[in-house]
Amino acid sequence: MTRLTLFVAPYACPRVPTAALEEVGVPFETIVVGIDAGEHKSPEFQKLNPKGKVPCLLVNDEPLTENVAILSWLHRRFPDAGLLPATDCELEKMRQVADLAFCAGGLHPIVTRIRMSHRFVEDPSLALQVRKKGIDAMRPNADMINDRLAGSNWWYADKWSVIDAYLHWIWFRMTGAGFPAGDYPHWQAHYERTSNYPSVQKMLAREVQWQAELESRGAAYPP
Amino acid sequence: MTRLTLFVAPYACPRVPTAALEEVGVPFETIVVGIDAGEHKSPEFQKLNPKGKVPCLLVNDEPLTENVAILSWLHRRFPDAGLLPATDCELEKMRQVADLAFCAGGLHPIVTRIRMSHRFVEDPSLALQVRKKGIDAMRPNADMINDRLAGSNWWYADKWSVIDAYLHWIWFRMTGAGFPAGDYPHWQAHYERTSNYPSVQKMLAREVQWQAELESRGAAYPP
Repeated sequence: MTRLTLFVAPYACPRVPTAALEEVGVPFETIVVGIDAGEHKSPEFQKLNPKGKVPCLLVNDEPLTENVAILSWLHRRFPDAGLLPATDCELEKMRQVADLAFCAGGLHPIVTRIRMSHRFVEDPSLALQVRKKGIDAMRPNADMINDRLAGSNWWYADKWSVIDAYLHWIWFRMTGAGFPAGDYPHWQAHYERTSNYPSVQKMLAREVQWQAELESRGAAYPP
Repeated sequence: MTRLTLFVAPYACPRVPTAALEEVGVPFETIVVGIDAGEHKSPEFQKLNPKGKVPCLLVNDEPLTENVAILSWLHRRFPDAGLLPATDCELEKMRQVADLAFCAGGLHPIVTRIRMSHRFVEDPSLALQVRKKGIDAMRPNADMINDRLAGSNWWYADKWSVIDAYLHWIWFRMTGAGFPAGDYPHWQAHYERTSNYPSVQKMLAREVQWQAELESRGAAYPP
């Protein structure tokens, strides 16, 4: 049997592959990395992922990094789990990869501007300027996503997918840092729907444990 | 025959799929989008790509977006072109996707901080602070890439791939905006090697034409 171990951190984007693994339903371990305590820069971890980032999935001790690749691998390894809609069309498969890449490379960096705005300037008192410009940059994307979610429960119409788990994390992160949730009611409703989705609920329950573990070793960071 | 049309903009990341298409060697058209003139926000273009971004590849009029997806599709559609190393190992294939995702979702957003620093703050006089923090954020990545390129010609040892074209664009963009090239001699040497690579040279020759076209209609932007 394939041994699966996911390196995670509470409230961060490893939420998405965690929900995906819960959806697949296979056993997997998690190892919690204390980002605020700099544990992602340890030599042991960087031996597995020289980029010093979570998530990182160990497949029988072989590391795979980047959400786009981890989620694509899980979908291909466990096709019956329906992490993405089934299709025989090669172009359609690659459009699903494009949706994953849009979350990881388009939306996530804007979330970082909104949520981690202090990292972008030397003078921390200027962080609010960075946040405001991040919110401005997110708005056209939020318009597009809100419109798409207006008429359907999920990103791919009537079928939950890992894109929904990704949008759940993005909404949580950015609205928790001042993005105006009320302007995007369909994405807000989608967030509530995904919050009640079984795999997401299991993921959230795990996250409580991760945070408790970090607290117990003095490496916790508030959400 | 598959009709391929790529929406591009000079000096921007559509350089990478352009080099890939040159490497494949099939006929393709390009349509130049004047980013500075806001042409990527036109209703016509947003009908094809609601995200309003280049590159966008039309495959027989069907749009595919995001470099990770476009390059993956090209590799799967034209496996003999060697855009990425051939492998039967599923995990290895996904590691190549991870490398693409790292360029698109890890490095590109930092390039934007260095190159487009004025977009991150309301007061343009603070852009230099943003640039400096962007350079700081790039350094550990540049260390890792420089180390990997120390002992080999290409990202994948002895074989050119689209990752090399991606690293070529990233280096061009960030060193052109103040990133200290001299601190990373192996990446610098890699840049010179890729600059002389035939597909990259053909791409650069096309770019001269794109810029001339934008100039002729008053929509050009300096590199």
